[in-house]
Amino acid sequence: MDTWLPSLITDTPQQGFELAITLSRRGVKYTQTDTDVLHKLRPEYANNADSLTAASQVIAINFQTVAAANNYWRDKK
Amino acid sequence: MDTWLPSLITDTPQQGFELAITLSRRGVKYTQTDTDVLHKLRPEYANNADSLTAASQVIAINFQTVAAANNYWRDKK
Amino acid sequence: MDTWLPSLITDTPQQGFELAITLSRRGVKYTQTDTDVLHKLRPEYANNADSLTAASQVIAINFQTVAAANNYWRDKK
Amino acid sequence: MDTWLPSLITDTPQQGFELAITLSRRGVKYTQTDTDVLHKLRPEYANNADSLTAASQVIAINFQTVAAANNYWRDKK
Amino acid sequence: MDTWLPSLITDTPQQGFELAITLSRRGVKYTQTDTDVLHKLRPEYANNADSLTAASQVIAINFQTVAAANNYWRDKK
Amino acid sequence: MDTWLPSLITDTPQQGFELAITLSRRGVKYTQTDTDVLHKLRPEYANNADSLTAASQVIAINFQTVAAANNYWRDKK
Repeated sequence: MDTWLPSLITDTPQQGFELAITLSRRGVKYTQTDTDVLHKLRPEYANNADSLTAASQVIAINFQTVAAANNYWRDKK
Repeated sequence: MDTWLPSLITDTPQQGFELAITLSRRGVKYTQTDTDVLHKLRPEYANNADSLTAASQVIAINFQTVAAANNYWRDKK
Repeated sequence: MDTWLPSLITDTPQQGFELAITLSRRGVKYTQTDTDVLHKLRPEYANNADSLTAASQVIAINFQTVAAANNYWRDKK
Repeated sequence: MDTWLPSLITDTPQQGFELAITLSRRGVKYTQTDTDVLHKLRPEYANNADSLTAASQVIAINFQTVAAANNYWRDKK
Repeated sequence: MDTWLPSLITDTPQQGFELAITLSRRGVKYTQTDTDVLHKLRPEYANNADSLTAASQVIAINFQTVAAANNYWRDKK
Repeated sequence: MDTWLPSLITDTPQQGFELAITLSRRGVKYTQTDTDVLHKLRPEYANNADSLTAASQVIAINFQTVAAANNYWRDKK
């Protein structure tokens, strides 16, 4: 597999949040490697309120990690 | 996408809690970008007790991040 | 909206736990602002074991934040 | 309400784990204050594997808080 | 009850992971003390993918605590 | 059981993420030791959007632990 996560450091909190989204999706992709299946599943959860909340929760957990890694971007304020 | 998260720093804990809500909603919006779909889904979870608890949990997780970033607003007490 | 969260600091762990409950309920209220709906939903989850466990989990997550903010009330032992 | 949480400090990790159980149950009791209802709900979740896992998860989250408060009982090793 | 958790300190990360499993099971046992019931419930969740994921999640949360207690076994590398 | 977790330290964040996946799977395997059962369950959750989100969440929690153990790979940037 190619390099997709060279660092947890980002320039801004927003980029950190987007990295958290990447981490969340990678967690799914490592489990289901067939992208055709993933595309077929997408409408199933993207149109379900509870599934979207669950997706947002995984992002929130990964954002905790990225934010801590970046010392909450305090030095860049 | 425009800048929606320039900083995790807020003046008060309450503003920090509201930022946690913003983060939680953004986590949803990045997954389902169609705002029409999001509006249609809203009544579905806003009238379901378990969905509201789940939403509150995502906010709680994001609030942990924002509170830590602000050193729990200890210096502003 | 009026000020409901001026500080995360409390005198005792028990008050901190009660603040965690407040945070958990506020997370719900920000999502469903209609208090009539909230009152109608109450019996639905207050009489369901899994819903109560889920509510207790949100409180536990918020209590982590409040306890850390208060340095676990170690200095007040 | 009387004082049920004077401190997060315990002598041993095991007592800390038991305090985490107390915190988890209190989270439920604050939401459903009627002990008759709680007793009626008990068999419902105590005989369901997923409900027991969920209960164990809330305990795990509260144990994180109690363990951190006690500095993981490192000084008492 | 006899002593089952004298310390959170383990020699290796793997032993720490196994302690996290013990903590997760104890969380269940404190809630359902009847071991006959627990044995009867075992096949129910051990053959269900979502139940196994939920069990793995509780272990992950407890492992966070054990790993922090052991300072991530950094000194033993 | 043989040694499968000698250390939480990895060279890169990506290897750390993959270790988090290993931890998540081990949490399942300790609970259901029969690999035939695990293989039979795989299609059940690998084709279900909510199951994949749940799996990604366990990975996210374990990644928090691994990332903290590695001090977020800050020194290797």
